[in-house]
Amino acid sequence: MSQLRKDPIVGRWTIIANERARRPAAFVDPQSTITDQKDCPYCQDIVSRGVYESHGVKVLNSISPILDDSKPFERRRQGLYELAHSYGSHEIVVEAPEHLANMADLPPGQIKAVMKTYALRMQAHRKNPSIEYILAYKNYGIAAGGRNIGHCRSQIMAVPVLPRRVKDKTIGAKQYFDSHERCLFCDMVSQELKNKERVVVENKHFVVITPFASRFPFETCILPKDHHCDFADGIAGHESSLAAIMKDILLRFKIGLNDPAYNYMIQTSPVQNPSSFKNNYHWHIEVMPRLTRVAGFERGTGFYICPIPPEMAAVFLREVDIHART
Amino acid sequence: MSQLRKDPIVGRWTIIANERARRPAAFVDPQSTITDQKDCPYCQDIVSRGVYESHGVKVLNSISPILDDSKPFERRRQGLYELAHSYGSHEIVVEAPEHLANMADLPPGQIKAVMKTYALRMQAHRKNPSIEYILAYKNYGIAAGGRNIGHCRSQIMAVPVLPRRVKDKTIGAKQYFDSHERCLFCDMVSQELKNKERVVVENKHFVVITPFASRFPFETCILPKDHHCDFADGIAGHESSLAAIMKDILLRFKIGLNDPAYNYMIQTSPVQNPSSFKNNYHWHIEVMPRLTRVAGFERGTGFYICPIPPEMAAVFLREVDIHART
Repeated sequence: MSQLRKDPIVGRWTIIANERARRPAAFVDPQSTITDQKDCPYCQDIVSRGVYESHGVKVLNSISPILDDSKPFERRRQGLYELAHSYGSHEIVVEAPEHLANMADLPPGQIKAVMKTYALRMQAHRKNPSIEYILAYKNYGIAAGGRNIGHCRSQIMAVPVLPRRVKDKTIGAKQYFDSHERCLFCDMVSQELKNKERVVVENKHFVVITPFASRFPFETCILPKDHHCDFADGIAGHESSLAAIMKDILLRFKIGLNDPAYNYMIQTSPVQNPSSFKNNYHWHIEVMPRLTRVAGFERGTGFYICPIPPEMAAVFLREVDIHART
Repeated sequence: MSQLRKDPIVGRWTIIANERARRPAAFVDPQSTITDQKDCPYCQDIVSRGVYESHGVKVLNSISPILDDSKPFERRRQGLYELAHSYGSHEIVVEAPEHLANMADLPPGQIKAVMKTYALRMQAHRKNPSIEYILAYKNYGIAAGGRNIGHCRSQIMAVPVLPRRVKDKTIGAKQYFDSHERCLFCDMVSQELKNKERVVVENKHFVVITPFASRFPFETCILPKDHHCDFADGIAGHESSLAAIMKDILLRFKIGLNDPAYNYMIQTSPVQNPSSFKNNYHWHIEVMPRLTRVAGFERGTGFYICPIPPEMAAVFLREVDIHART
């Protein structure tokens, strides 16, 4: 069984994937790629692994899950180390019945169905009192950590510990709220909308910015204009608006940056003690193409070098003609 | 001029490289590679940029520095954001006169000269009261964020802010010390040496382990057996021992994992207030091949999935015959 292990120095959790551990020699060879549609596992009707299906969106249990909720979550010690079996849930969201690789090419209605599916699965997982966080995210393309299967899908992980970076974000947001009595993200939205130089696109309910201290070239963040700490509850009534702006930014990447690999990560509030995040946390989605490699400096320090100013990235993305070809 | 910008949520600093900003379109094309030795900039005698030279190791000012100490460090505000010009120093360490790509192939005496050079440059930079941290690190290979020039070199950055991850490490180490009255790293060294399953190799003064909560496959850490918070002072008298174990682990990567890209990062204590780190921090070097891509899950949460247990990685690395061919 896989394990959850805590770094004794910084308190970061790692999933040590015993179950799907590859032979050491396998790391030397590149990953296999499925190019032929007839071999696509997501075009097939995988009833046995199905969890949910609606509007052409299918949720499946991962075929090689790295998290497993068949026995209760229990932490234990090994000298100065702390570990647990890798409790939790790992689901694959197959975003459309069609064999199509990039979410940018889905109709807005289908992207809306995907967003609603994330919300429904989050609402289901958060009933489990052992779950601390639910992450919905996408890896598109090899450089983004995805496999080249050619069928667009994303993943949902429900985990029994609070990931380090989420914890850092909630702590930072709470500190700001405590000293200003205002939400940091609401203040950021209003400063960015006033200043405009980092705004890529906006609609009624959302704005896409290139963050002030971007780590990566063309990194973007979708921020809801209305305050809500939680994705699943916060998108209610705004699903079409979110789908439209998601398609918009993904098309800007595809057309402007030559169909790059990308990731998005929905950053919602932690599952437990929701009332403590209600006023100070504000859900958002990080969306970023993968154009450069993270070097030793970044890995060693958590201190990033971004090779292009976010203001320049915003100008570039704003100027992409997303109606040119789609 | 480039800027240092602070993320308002998590407090992480980013260098926004205006000076060497590439045109947006340049991110679409791969980086240029220099394959011909006659074009190698490090084979040439670059006297004008030279900072230091000894035992065949040359230290040069970067030709495209992203840090610059020509005017004093000053933080300023922009609404809720905080920034500064990118004060500091950025040096290239050319590790040998020979046109040779991998440090693994240098004689131990030359690696020793490189380590001594890091120590000397750290001692020089820490006299500057504006410098908070000095990072010496290497990017070997494209996948590790390096350029393919074929001449082995590393980098030294001296920065005026404490990088987020270094701060996290010192906080974690101090908490452990405060509750146990012992150094966390010393306890880790003794637990690992007793347990042995994550020990790759050891010599008189150092041990190489695969960390308990490894983030990456075949991630390793060189830990000094003797307690010292600071690299530059701590290696005194142990330089040969460090060079020998560095060559050993790099050869294990090269032979066992087919000459992979790798990074190492020297994790020394912060420059300012050294007495507050003396007992609780313990310098070490993270050395890691770059075999997999970091996906959205890791980027979104700081919560890693390591596809091979560190105990299995340690067995594999231990069994590499480093005398087989060199």
